[in-house]
Amino acid sequence: MMPAFDLKRRVFAEALGTCLLVATVIGSGIMADTLTDDTALALLGNTLATGAILVVLITIFGPISGAHFNPAVSLVFALKRDLARRDLGFYVAAQVAGGIVGTVVAHLMFDLPVIEASLKVRTGGSQWFSEWVATFGLVAVILAGIRFEQKSIAWLVGLYITAAYWFTASTSFANPAVALARSLTNTFSGIRPLDLPGFVIAEVLGALCALALMSWLLRQPPANT
Amino acid sequence: MMPAFDLKRRVFAEALGTCLLVATVIGSGIMADTLTDDTALALLGNTLATGAILVVLITIFGPISGAHFNPAVSLVFALKRDLARRDLGFYVAAQVAGGIVGTVVAHLMFDLPVIEASLKVRTGGSQWFSEWVATFGLVAVILAGIRFEQKSIAWLVGLYITAAYWFTASTSFANPAVALARSLTNTFSGIRPLDLPGFVIAEVLGALCALALMSWLLRQPPANT
Amino acid sequence: MMPAFDLKRRVFAEALGTCLLVATVIGSGIMADTLTDDTALALLGNTLATGAILVVLITIFGPISGAHFNPAVSLVFALKRDLARRDLGFYVAAQVAGGIVGTVVAHLMFDLPVIEASLKVRTGGSQWFSEWVATFGLVAVILAGIRFEQKSIAWLVGLYITAAYWFTASTSFANPAVALARSLTNTFSGIRPLDLPGFVIAEVLGALCALALMSWLLRQPPANT
Amino acid sequence: MMPAFDLKRRVFAEALGTCLLVATVIGSGIMADTLTDDTALALLGNTLATGAILVVLITIFGPISGAHFNPAVSLVFALKRDLARRDLGFYVAAQVAGGIVGTVVAHLMFDLPVIEASLKVRTGGSQWFSEWVATFGLVAVILAGIRFEQKSIAWLVGLYITAAYWFTASTSFANPAVALARSLTNTFSGIRPLDLPGFVIAEVLGALCALALMSWLLRQPPANT
Repeated sequence: MMPAFDLKRRVFAEALGTCLLVATVIGSGIMADTLTDDTALALLGNTLATGAILVVLITIFGPISGAHFNPAVSLVFALKRDLARRDLGFYVAAQVAGGIVGTVVAHLMFDLPVIEASLKVRTGGSQWFSEWVATFGLVAVILAGIRFEQKSIAWLVGLYITAAYWFTASTSFANPAVALARSLTNTFSGIRPLDLPGFVIAEVLGALCALALMSWLLRQPPANT
Repeated sequence: MMPAFDLKRRVFAEALGTCLLVATVIGSGIMADTLTDDTALALLGNTLATGAILVVLITIFGPISGAHFNPAVSLVFALKRDLARRDLGFYVAAQVAGGIVGTVVAHLMFDLPVIEASLKVRTGGSQWFSEWVATFGLVAVILAGIRFEQKSIAWLVGLYITAAYWFTASTSFANPAVALARSLTNTFSGIRPLDLPGFVIAEVLGALCALALMSWLLRQPPANT
Repeated sequence: MMPAFDLKRRVFAEALGTCLLVATVIGSGIMADTLTDDTALALLGNTLATGAILVVLITIFGPISGAHFNPAVSLVFALKRDLARRDLGFYVAAQVAGGIVGTVVAHLMFDLPVIEASLKVRTGGSQWFSEWVATFGLVAVILAGIRFEQKSIAWLVGLYITAAYWFTASTSFANPAVALARSLTNTFSGIRPLDLPGFVIAEVLGALCALALMSWLLRQPPANT
Repeated sequence: MMPAFDLKRRVFAEALGTCLLVATVIGSGIMADTLTDDTALALLGNTLATGAILVVLITIFGPISGAHFNPAVSLVFALKRDLARRDLGFYVAAQVAGGIVGTVVAHLMFDLPVIEASLKVRTGGSQWFSEWVATFGLVAVILAGIRFEQKSIAWLVGLYITAAYWFTASTSFANPAVALARSLTNTFSGIRPLDLPGFVIAEVLGALCALALMSWLLRQPPANT
């Protein structure tokens, strides 16, 4: 076993990873939206960049901090006691702060105001159900993936989000810290601050439901083969 | 060897996996079709999401149930006695039920009626031949993949379907349970219920031909090297 | 070591693999070209399907026949004595025959005449140079890939061709048997029969140059570290 | 351990790899730009080809030379003493020369003048900041990737650049030798020679900052778990 990294480095890795993730989500949305009038094509560029960077970031930061980059995921791990509960607050704070810096980085690269509140409406029952499904699926993939194929977890998450950008009506935020950061950009991937609470609640509920269901599904009977 | 999961969990995994697969196929079709007027671009979004989710779902549910999500595949494994024949009915029922729930999930995410019969005509000799080819190829890939590269089977199936969405004239349903579920959506990826039997028959025939051919091709002479 | 497959099965694997490869190249070209007016988008669908199926076919047929599907590659292996020289003729014949059947399969799926001569002009110095570069690169990738990362060879070839469809002016045929099969389709991926000789000569020269160069580059000095 | 390759072969591998990388970047840019009027689609073709060839080239040349293809990366390795400092000049010269030949190869394939100065303006603070971010990220990915997942480094770099083409405003050159080569093509991926110094300085600074930060982040406390 590799010795654990200290809390300072783990928290920093969560912040830097979430920063780069958000910079990619928002930056690629701006780039794509600028280059084309076809929204499907813009979503394609946004998807490709997001899926690719997730594989990279989870691979390189996973061994340091676990590479959650997501308060809903950290919450699930804290409940499973795979993350010390006293560390949960530090992780979430790092994710939120890193996400906001990611928005700023994207804006500076594209010559936009440091932050601006999004005007993009994302609300209503089918949006909330989409976020519930998206986060349920994400957490189910992570829990089963860690159990059966730990070394591929970065690929599984990258591919899952690639699919979820397209199969959910909300384009799958599935992450409260990223959702918050995205409320601070009035570009392709933004969300109106007013609509944040609905998304965050749906995400947390989806994560908890996945934890409950997968705890049952992955509980194996004693070996008798 | 990992102890086997019990039948209840295996059947549940088949249902949940097929549900998520169908939700992705139909959901991404709706998303793509809504965002663009270019049908090739819509198919691209649909392909990307489907290929990606297949890699994920087969990886995470494979160790539980084998991750067939497809009655034609379960039939082939039952004939090869890799699936207990008494379990075949449970598997197929779970796939069909899971698929239908997947349609409902997609419709609820996109604010559509719970189900509606598709009006999309998909019939005629070249469509049926396409489905025969698509399922022949799928089963050939699975049988040779399991033999030579078991640990990559999720990738092989995901990549095969990625290609088959484009190289067959029918966009490669290659799956009777998914075809049935797709007859209940009047969106991009639908199929008229009337056209189901032709597709299902072609798929089953393709699967059986692949089983016969690959049984011969993969039979190795005794070692003498 | 796995015992070798007999010549009959190896030759059959070459034929079936080349058939499925050509059916994918031509079928996805027809599908893409039918669905969109944007040629870049058509090439994208064509690329995605071709790259994906190459990974699949090389993985599943590699352990049987080596998965050449390409007379230029078989020639290189025969010169390196990795393929028995008496088998070369069988391999090339199987690739040519399988490729032609692949054209027929694609045409039947898309309801076209069994075969028809292509009218697509592909000739001239820059086209020939493109084919030289494409096949040089392909053979270099195969030779170095086998040396350093044998288990990833299917991915390396699939990714190389994905790139080469875009970075060469000829969209990288890089394969005399596939080129011949593509001369028999008057669709997106066709080539005028008259233009075949130029392509085939450039491809064979590119393959031989890569063999010469890589033989030098991969020759390691005796260990003295 | 594999015996080291001699300097001649290592330098040749750097040159050939950089040549093929640049030929792909420029060639796919020309192809994409010729085939479509949609700039996002052109960038997509350019991205796909570049990401794919990076995985291939790093896999096949990595065991020979380390597969830097990038003076900023070679500089970082020389500072870390993972590259003998007396070899740095040879590496950089090979990368620069190989890159220029890559431009020529792309131009000859597409029937363009051997070289021509680019007229594409890429300058200003947000472009420079983009290049700083792009190269910072690239070097961070390489340093952490080598530490934690050496065998996946080719994929990590390919996926990182895939994302970075979209999330930076400059489309992520992140490589002084490639930037120089791209100043000699007046096509999609060109850069005005006048704008080179700004890019190169930003890239080198980004690389050095990543080296400093990752040296701290990856320094593990002594094992006490």
